Amino acid sequence: MDKAYLCRMQSLPSRLLEDAVNEMASLPGIGRKTALRLVLNLLRRTPDEVSQFANSFLLLRQGIHYCSECFNISDTTICSICADKTRDRGLLCVVEDVRDVLAIENTRQYRGLYHVLGGIISPMDGIGPADLEIESLISKVAQQQPTELIMALSATMEGDTTNFYLYRKLKDYPVKVSTLARGVAIGDELAYADELTLGRSILNRTPFENSMQR
Amino acid sequence: MDKAYLCRMQSLPSRLLEDAVNEMASLPGIGRKTALRLVLNLLRRTPDEVSQFANSFLLLRQGIHYCSECFNISDTTICSICADKTRDRGLLCVVEDVRDVLAIENTRQYRGLYHVLGGIISPMDGIGPADLEIESLISKVAQQQPTELIMALSATMEGDTTNFYLYRKLKDYPVKVSTLARGVAIGDELAYADELTLGRSILNRTPFENSMQR
Repeated sequence: MDKAYLCRMQSLPSRLLEDAVNEMASLPGIGRKTALRLVLNLLRRTPDEVSQFANSFLLLRQGIHYCSECFNISDTTICSICADKTRDRGLLCVVEDVRDVLAIENTRQYRGLYHVLGGIISPMDGIGPADLEIESLISKVAQQQPTELIMALSATMEGDTTNFYLYRKLKDYPVKVSTLARGVAIGDELAYADELTLGRSILNRTPFENSMQR
Repeated sequence: MDKAYLCRMQSLPSRLLEDAVNEMASLPGIGRKTALRLVLNLLRRTPDEVSQFANSFLLLRQGIHYCSECFNISDTTICSICADKTRDRGLLCVVEDVRDVLAIENTRQYRGLYHVLGGIISPMDGIGPADLEIESLISKVAQQQPTELIMALSATMEGDTTNFYLYRKLKDYPVKVSTLARGVAIGDELAYADELTLGRSILNRTPFENSMQR
């Protein structure tokens, strides 16, 4: 089935269409079949609309600015979070990218600052420590001496690798390093939780009064 | 949950990022969360790679050509299918877009020609008969007098609407009009087929010897 499908997809009747489909399919999670559907949708738009579509990515790539403090995407030199004087400057939350900042901000449970790595150590994708904002994190810890660093990376192999790498790099500095609590998600049925998560949530059980905090 | 999510997504920290995410999310089936993930992937590429990505759509939209016979996407004035002298010129298969041509070609069961409507009548999306290659189909039927027209449109409300519209327009011409057989898909278990399809497949049952053809 898959082979027949690939066969079919190799014979697009236009070189330009082929190129556009290949570019669209280079996005993560977009297969060639979906890419063709998206490109055909673009083809039904006016040339102006397609220009606007394409230019938005060109403008973004050329004009993107990062906060000089936390390296989050920002239109200003210092982002609104780093500029906020009411934030706790002793707390530094280490995240992968802007999506994680948005997700944590949305919880309204965190009033410290962030440090955006701009990715995660992933040898499979050719991303090493030098590609990320790790040196700047070390020098920030050395200079600003925050009291606590919260590692808020994904609970994946790559996230754990990055955690370990940072932990080793930071162990000579007088900073407390913590990670996000791992456990059964709120609303999840216990029977469906995986063994690893359930096991960790028993080991790291919290006092009952803490579990009621909102 | 959804409201909180929208809330979060409204506060992207950069106008350029916001624009790019909006454009990406304008593609069908791409929500804002996915759009942000895709745009962040683009941001990790070199400016040259992003140019190549964006330009592929600009070039496609500006340089796209359609076959003057069947209106399929084609780099040449007459596409390879219409130019093929061994094809049965009495058979005309009416389809929505290039994906359907690729799908039918892939079956290797059809040796006639195509007519690509370039869409389907869909009042909800503001697509009427005038937006499609319907006039050209009528005049093709009048001039070239094919023996059979095969309606190969999706089995959806829009597909049926378009079928009926074309059927009415064509009823004064001496051409046999047929549609794709509707029935239980090969490999499907009967118990999971929907009532409408199963009912239709009983009414339009085929002689046993035909069902064995490959």
